[in-house]
Amino acid sequence: MLKGFFKLTPPERVFEIIDTFAPLQGEEIPIEDSLGRVLSRDIYSPSHMPGFPRATMDGYAVRSRDTFGASPHLPAILELKGEVRMGEIPKMRIGKGEAVKIATGGMLPKGADGVVMIEFSHMLDDSTIEIEKAISPFENVMQPDDDIKRGELVLEKGRRLRPPDIGALAGLGIQCVSVYKRPRIAIISTGDEVIPIEKEPSPGQVRDINRYTLSCFCTAVGACPIFLGICPDDFSALKELVERGMEIADSVWISGGSSVGTRDMTLKVFESMHGFELLVHGIAIRPGKPTIIGQVGSKPVVGLPGQVSSAFIVAEIFMSRIIKRLSGEDPSDIVPYIEAKMTRNMESSPGREDYIRVRLLKEGDDILADPIIGKSGLISPLIQADGLVRIEMNREGVYEGEKVKVIPFISKGALW
Amino acid sequence: MLKGFFKLTPPERVFEIIDTFAPLQGEEIPIEDSLGRVLSRDIYSPSHMPGFPRATMDGYAVRSRDTFGASPHLPAILELKGEVRMGEIPKMRIGKGEAVKIATGGMLPKGADGVVMIEFSHMLDDSTIEIEKAISPFENVMQPDDDIKRGELVLEKGRRLRPPDIGALAGLGIQCVSVYKRPRIAIISTGDEVIPIEKEPSPGQVRDINRYTLSCFCTAVGACPIFLGICPDDFSALKELVERGMEIADSVWISGGSSVGTRDMTLKVFESMHGFELLVHGIAIRPGKPTIIGQVGSKPVVGLPGQVSSAFIVAEIFMSRIIKRLSGEDPSDIVPYIEAKMTRNMESSPGREDYIRVRLLKEGDDILADPIIGKSGLISPLIQADGLVRIEMNREGVYEGEKVKVIPFISKGALW
Repeated sequence: MLKGFFKLTPPERVFEIIDTFAPLQGEEIPIEDSLGRVLSRDIYSPSHMPGFPRATMDGYAVRSRDTFGASPHLPAILELKGEVRMGEIPKMRIGKGEAVKIATGGMLPKGADGVVMIEFSHMLDDSTIEIEKAISPFENVMQPDDDIKRGELVLEKGRRLRPPDIGALAGLGIQCVSVYKRPRIAIISTGDEVIPIEKEPSPGQVRDINRYTLSCFCTAVGACPIFLGICPDDFSALKELVERGMEIADSVWISGGSSVGTRDMTLKVFESMHGFELLVHGIAIRPGKPTIIGQVGSKPVVGLPGQVSSAFIVAEIFMSRIIKRLSGEDPSDIVPYIEAKMTRNMESSPGREDYIRVRLLKEGDDILADPIIGKSGLISPLIQADGLVRIEMNREGVYEGEKVKVIPFISKGALW
Repeated sequence: MLKGFFKLTPPERVFEIIDTFAPLQGEEIPIEDSLGRVLSRDIYSPSHMPGFPRATMDGYAVRSRDTFGASPHLPAILELKGEVRMGEIPKMRIGKGEAVKIATGGMLPKGADGVVMIEFSHMLDDSTIEIEKAISPFENVMQPDDDIKRGELVLEKGRRLRPPDIGALAGLGIQCVSVYKRPRIAIISTGDEVIPIEKEPSPGQVRDINRYTLSCFCTAVGACPIFLGICPDDFSALKELVERGMEIADSVWISGGSSVGTRDMTLKVFESMHGFELLVHGIAIRPGKPTIIGQVGSKPVVGLPGQVSSAFIVAEIFMSRIIKRLSGEDPSDIVPYIEAKMTRNMESSPGREDYIRVRLLKEGDDILADPIIGKSGLISPLIQADGLVRIEMNREGVYEGEKVKVIPFISKGALW
């Protein structure tokens, strides 16, 4: 009988379980700091935008009916009555046969209902222009509520704010927004062999790779990592750290414990917490099988695989979802990818999902997905990888030359 | 004769021009702060990693030749000589017919050359185990230099650091790294009609949308925005701000000036700067045509379109490249996308590249790319868009039902 045996949860079910976690509370912050934060309230527009009729081209504000039938051969002749000054209410009123010069963004004067582009006009003298093209009513004009209407739902609760969203908020004069708090993630590294990075390891010891990999992962996906320390393989020491984590953070992640004994201890510590509920004990994926997800009250507690590569892939696939959930973001299932050709066969076992680390290569016009072979305890194959290829549960593998979708690492960031 | 006429530069040429800008200087920072920063020096490994032979499975360290021929029907019988303690150098030495218990990550004792997984063993009594499967030499063992070899090039100059990279640096005990400085971008909004967002606009006035959109864009792509203020349409005032920007920043971006007059003024101010060189005066794209790129000394100076939507799309396509370049990152041309079906025909003119803003929709198993129609002066269509579809220069458009590649906005961020 296998000591580490447990019933594996399929990945789809793990997502459903994660989606039952409640978002954190909201807080009010200035829009300057709101990039990448998730709205905790719908935003309705307090006013029309732009709020006045605006020229969208450089040219002449006119009554459109005065241009009807105008052509290069039979231009309309109009009287020039001055110029609209930017940022001011034009004092003039456009009457029959009259025009005013206007620049893009200028306010349309009363009486005018369209703008003739400067390209289709000629000055005859200081106060006379000819127009060689007819315009329709409202041509080259933005109406007061063309961009955003008063009372309109501008941005929905659950939306992660992007630069243009914040531009729109600025445009409406909204200086503060309600967003969900950033998830604080308490991270604990375990293992008698793990030492801080500033120490020189003796044979048998290793520096704490997982702390940095997981902390940076959290930062990359918009959470705040709080490192609680390296914990020896000791029940009371670990329990004390987990309790501390529950006090100061929104979720506790224990990494390390690649041996069955340490994994058992992680679970025992969780089980000793008041109100603990075990939700997932092993996921039907490779790598990442020995993952534990539970909750203490409303807070997710997680035992990640000790192998850094497995822990990182579990973070990419499942922890990112936990962070989305705590942040109040509605997860989208439309994910960008890169289509590429496999450079070799990769086998997979039925009954589990496999995630293959691949490097992307260019060969002429083709993009190749080159699997990186390496034990999951190594960090170097992860450095070489550009993303993951998922082999579905019911497939036995992917074949050389097959077209696959490579999913870039979420925590890679877009550019930074 | 068109007053705003200028020779348009094709986008590919604009990229070549941008790639001639030099990366900024380097600085030394702790690895904790290095996520998303770009290495300004190659990193070589100071030591082997893990540095000692390590078990990759829970089980028994043995001499592999003692297991040769072992099977469930004819198991090998070995004498158990204790257990390897994690993080310590095992004191025992494995002789013929001997085994020691070892957990994943433990150091292999002298004499042993492999690990039998616990699943293939049975305890017969306290000091005797039977092994029912043969192992090859070095099976389930990581060698001292299996992950990273001493002197190996671990991470190359020009690489933007991701979480596993920082994990590897931690594992090697590298606490500080040399990275290129973050580009500081001075941003100036122009226009007599533009007012700060805390003010109530009179008719004819608009709040400063571009400042927030462009500042957040910079932050999203790893640059530091410095807002210099709103500048009226006045040559000396603008010149003073540009000079100030040249002093305190690595690049100056002027936005606004959608009218030809203001655009002309931006160029005049640039031309009045000592050592100015005009590189691009108009790009053959839509939107974004009236973009000016030049340099003063080694610093890029940019005149962006005044329409916020155009300015943002130019930022996504070209300013992101400037920031990559100043940050010292080698631009990759493998970009993730989402394949989707167009919901309608979109025309394009030959001789320019068109960028269509689209919203992604799901319809059964299909993903649809739904073009968002709206004047480029509006911000709301930009909020609704999930990404861009590029129509190449020599194409006349894309058709309803055609499969297109939707490029997500770079500044959307991966998750945050």
